[in-house]
Amino acid sequence: MNTPRFINPSFLPEIELRVSSIASHIREAGMKAILVASNANIFYTSGRYFRGYTYITDDGRAYWLVIRPEGFAPQENMAYIRKPEQIVEALAAMGATVPAAVGLEIDVLPYSTVERLSKALSISEIKDGSAPLRKARMVKTAYEIEEMRKDGMHQTEAYRHIPGIYRLDMTDVEFQIEIERLLRREGALGFSRVAGNLMEINMGSVLAGDNADNPTPYDFSMGGAGTDPSLPVGADGSIMRPGTAVMVDMNGAFNGYQTDLTRVWSIGRLPDLAMKAHDCSIRIMRELEKIALPGEKVSALYERAKEIVEEEKLTDYFMGHLQKAPFIGHGVGIELNEMPVLTPRSRDILEENMTIAIEPKFVIPGVGAVGIENTYRVTKDGLENLTPCPESVEEL
Amino acid sequence: MNTPRFINPSFLPEIELRVSSIASHIREAGMKAILVASNANIFYTSGRYFRGYTYITDDGRAYWLVIRPEGFAPQENMAYIRKPEQIVEALAAMGATVPAAVGLEIDVLPYSTVERLSKALSISEIKDGSAPLRKARMVKTAYEIEEMRKDGMHQTEAYRHIPGIYRLDMTDVEFQIEIERLLRREGALGFSRVAGNLMEINMGSVLAGDNADNPTPYDFSMGGAGTDPSLPVGADGSIMRPGTAVMVDMNGAFNGYQTDLTRVWSIGRLPDLAMKAHDCSIRIMRELEKIALPGEKVSALYERAKEIVEEEKLTDYFMGHLQKAPFIGHGVGIELNEMPVLTPRSRDILEENMTIAIEPKFVIPGVGAVGIENTYRVTKDGLENLTPCPESVEEL
Repeated sequence: MNTPRFINPSFLPEIELRVSSIASHIREAGMKAILVASNANIFYTSGRYFRGYTYITDDGRAYWLVIRPEGFAPQENMAYIRKPEQIVEALAAMGATVPAAVGLEIDVLPYSTVERLSKALSISEIKDGSAPLRKARMVKTAYEIEEMRKDGMHQTEAYRHIPGIYRLDMTDVEFQIEIERLLRREGALGFSRVAGNLMEINMGSVLAGDNADNPTPYDFSMGGAGTDPSLPVGADGSIMRPGTAVMVDMNGAFNGYQTDLTRVWSIGRLPDLAMKAHDCSIRIMRELEKIALPGEKVSALYERAKEIVEEEKLTDYFMGHLQKAPFIGHGVGIELNEMPVLTPRSRDILEENMTIAIEPKFVIPGVGAVGIENTYRVTKDGLENLTPCPESVEEL
Repeated sequence: MNTPRFINPSFLPEIELRVSSIASHIREAGMKAILVASNANIFYTSGRYFRGYTYITDDGRAYWLVIRPEGFAPQENMAYIRKPEQIVEALAAMGATVPAAVGLEIDVLPYSTVERLSKALSISEIKDGSAPLRKARMVKTAYEIEEMRKDGMHQTEAYRHIPGIYRLDMTDVEFQIEIERLLRREGALGFSRVAGNLMEINMGSVLAGDNADNPTPYDFSMGGAGTDPSLPVGADGSIMRPGTAVMVDMNGAFNGYQTDLTRVWSIGRLPDLAMKAHDCSIRIMRELEKIALPGEKVSALYERAKEIVEEEKLTDYFMGHLQKAPFIGHGVGIELNEMPVLTPRSRDILEENMTIAIEPKFVIPGVGAVGIENTYRVTKDGLENLTPCPESVEEL
């Protein structure tokens, strides 16, 4: 086999953009450098997952320390090591020094990993290296947005075929399995990264009928009992019945990035209240698409959505019925749950090229979940929809 | 809806067994109590995933502090809280005290989570609460083994249908998608828990032909390039060609537990060297099934396998060719990577009712990966195979 390159020369300018953004957030936090070790941030700072570390200094230099896989061609600022105790020596050999104040990803790396790295780097005080990375990743580069556009196109294409797989008296799980196959055949990796341990799921969520009102312990907008107490979320194996709604919120990860897209189908016709709530979700989207401009408060999106829901007297059903989710959307990109989070308490301000999933949803007792979710890019002229998929409820 | 029970009375004796085992490991480590917060251990100590904590004392008492979901019926030793800062007060109300030396799961919880918990509990010195849980979980209860027997039966049943889905000129990814569907229709949850961040994968690995020799950065026994640099493992989208082997090592998680099972099929006939290596893998299994008795060193299994491979002059291909994995198996249960790990450096001793996946595999250049993997229970009479599936290479 030929010797693979670690980072292709054509991709280096993209990495430089990201590193320069991270460096500005390192300086803002008063640090000198951060050592990156988590899977999502290793991918962000190199364009691939490798086992090892990326070291980023406040003046915008990046150094890669690779443990595995073996076999990359030599590259500037890249060195092979076997264990973290060799980091300082390897960095020194490349001309980089390690100051006493290096940030580590304290929000995602296990305690024992941070302790080991901190010892290996002789860090006197452990600083929060998670924040600069989260902030940098919140605003996407043109390349990243293009990757997410591809995700949105693939996901939309797969969703287009969903009506064709429905069979009478199917269970929600059987329906979900066929949607998984559609997505995988369209190129979905069948895996999506999530930060932290508050979300676990298979390829996504299909919620049929009253299962939507089963509360989940996880941080998802909607619930569902799941089929097993070890994974209490999503489809529960019940048969899809006439007069109920089926909400499809499945994996949109095709290339290391992902879009988040929810649509609803119905078995037969839905009651007026459900149709009204679904139309209200679409109305919220049209409003937010106009007001979500760079400089606007993230919390204002939540507040505007809430106002509309109150106007339409749908508050009881908004973001859940028996158990409610305290947000209407979230950043998305490499991970499903990125910054900003669209809550009333958010202090974040919208910036151009943030990518956010907005999901005003409703649970109507006896019917199920309705409403839509789109993934958007924030632009100077309002939101660009990365998931252009028909929004109305269609009968299966 | 009716009010669900947190733990059914019929399941309490099972939880008591587990808690009593954890408590003995807490005492052995010189601690007074541990606070459990990771998803896998929350499931182990309650039989369900919930958001919250299980507090376990050295005298074998357990207390559950639930944040979500809402709505469980009141239960002895269970209380609702909203945030970790309420743990001490809630425990006091149930008659439990929090000593200065409480263990936390330092190997799996993020650094910032451990810091917050340690502050909330006024812990003076952070102790390793991961080890007692890992050790308790290493030896399964009768209930857990029965769950894993079910996994093995379901996984075997799904594998039986694999030859029926093969089509000429299929890619490895297309083949994998149909296997995923077989497994899901057999009841696979489509999700399996893994400890740490050194493994990421979708529903498993299908390795066709020379892709098996592509090294991976992850801690898997075999590699594969994957289809995207964000997830460099497994099937790479190449067409399955005559004269090559296809190794199927897919998800066996049906109920919070899982079995690990690998089988090989061929496109047409395989060269003699590949068939010899596959037979060698089966021979290793038959030998280890006899010597893997309670009291035997885990390292002895690795050494015996290595001896057989050397006798058969297959060392160059054993556990990888270009990049080699330094183990031949691992504990399995709630997570894919449990204790013990079958390495030459292991100091663990086999105990009755450990469950281990043994996977002596080979990569033959130009052909692909061969060999098998079974999940076993350690018994007084040798290994019990939980994955009784035909072992020979069959032509597709």
